Amino acid sequence: MGGFFITFEGTDGSGKSTQIELLNKYFTENGYESLVVREPGSTPIGEKIRDIIIDKENKDMGHITEALLYAAARAQLVEKVIVPALRNGKIVISDRFLDSNVAYQGYGRNLGEDVIKDINKYAVNSLEPDVTFFLKTDPEECMKRMDSTRELDRLESEKAYFHKKVYEGYINIAEENKERVVVLEGRDTIENIHQSIVSHLKNIYKARSI
Amino acid sequence: MGGFFITFEGTDGSGKSTQIELLNKYFTENGYESLVVREPGSTPIGEKIRDIIIDKENKDMGHITEALLYAAARAQLVEKVIVPALRNGKIVISDRFLDSNVAYQGYGRNLGEDVIKDINKYAVNSLEPDVTFFLKTDPEECMKRMDSTRELDRLESEKAYFHKKVYEGYINIAEENKERVVVLEGRDTIENIHQSIVSHLKNIYKARSI
Repeated sequence: MGGFFITFEGTDGSGKSTQIELLNKYFTENGYESLVVREPGSTPIGEKIRDIIIDKENKDMGHITEALLYAAARAQLVEKVIVPALRNGKIVISDRFLDSNVAYQGYGRNLGEDVIKDINKYAVNSLEPDVTFFLKTDPEECMKRMDSTRELDRLESEKAYFHKKVYEGYINIAEENKERVVVLEGRDTIENIHQSIVSHLKNIYKARSI
Repeated sequence: MGGFFITFEGTDGSGKSTQIELLNKYFTENGYESLVVREPGSTPIGEKIRDIIIDKENKDMGHITEALLYAAARAQLVEKVIVPALRNGKIVISDRFLDSNVAYQGYGRNLGEDVIKDINKYAVNSLEPDVTFFLKTDPEECMKRMDSTRELDRLESEKAYFHKKVYEGYINIAEENKERVVVLEGRDTIENIHQSIVSHLKNIYKARSI
């Protein structure tokens, strides 16, 4: 398609947002057209779906309902934003993508990876990230970072046991997708992680140019 | 499961609501425990999803997004309301079920029956109606009936061509599922249609009791 699709993954509080901001700034300063989106959301309809997903009032939500809502928001984002941007040669950076659902719903909710991939088949429509950066930050450290900020949403406020399962899910996803997923140690400094991301992207760019 | 699951299908304005009301009254008067639900909706989360689906502001909604939102609302309804009620031996009457998505999104939006069934696999979770009553009312007649009432929602306000495709979809569904789908001529009187429904149900009951 011409463009380049980068996703960031990790549990809440792993440091994704900081790294996405730094990377986007790097692209802008170096004359690349980049676009940052977040999942679920980043379309008017997707943001309405996000509100339902994260609303703590909706504690009775079934796991399949939850997985289908994420997929619905994703379908809208892929069709209306990500694919058109990639077609226009842009770099798209997404805060979470399908791996998040595999980790949170597949592992965290025990639905399994296959169910999540089945549910997302038409939403993803064969789109795969060119590279995924997984911020491997210990879930206990993540929860400490979260507590100090704002009121937690429905997913964030899940118990420690849930976040641990999600984290282990991510470790498995990274192992199963070594070609695509770059693991970054979350305990490293912000600047070191950023430099590592830029260096990985330069290597991919070089490899593709040969 | 012990209970009995009845669905009503047809284009908007086909007369479903009137027949559902009459049938539910019939059950109550004859000492049966029955429950009426509508799709999408009939759960707190499902009604919020319904609001997104029918809101005319959301005209940019992709067809896959739409299909996934219907499936999400259905997953919640099946898991939290329909299956528990059937397990308790109740009769559940649903205003629309999976056939609606096959007709509206599969045929009307041209997504095809297989895509809709794939998307709904985990939402439906193998639940199938014991009997489906399809009110075969000419789409032009339906639209006339609709116009005289209230402001139309996003789906209702689709063009005549769309409603014609949905209607033809229903005809195909009825032909492919003769064992389950009972076709009722919408131009018949309300009372005749109701009597026909009751008579069909009595026959099913007799057949099962033998």
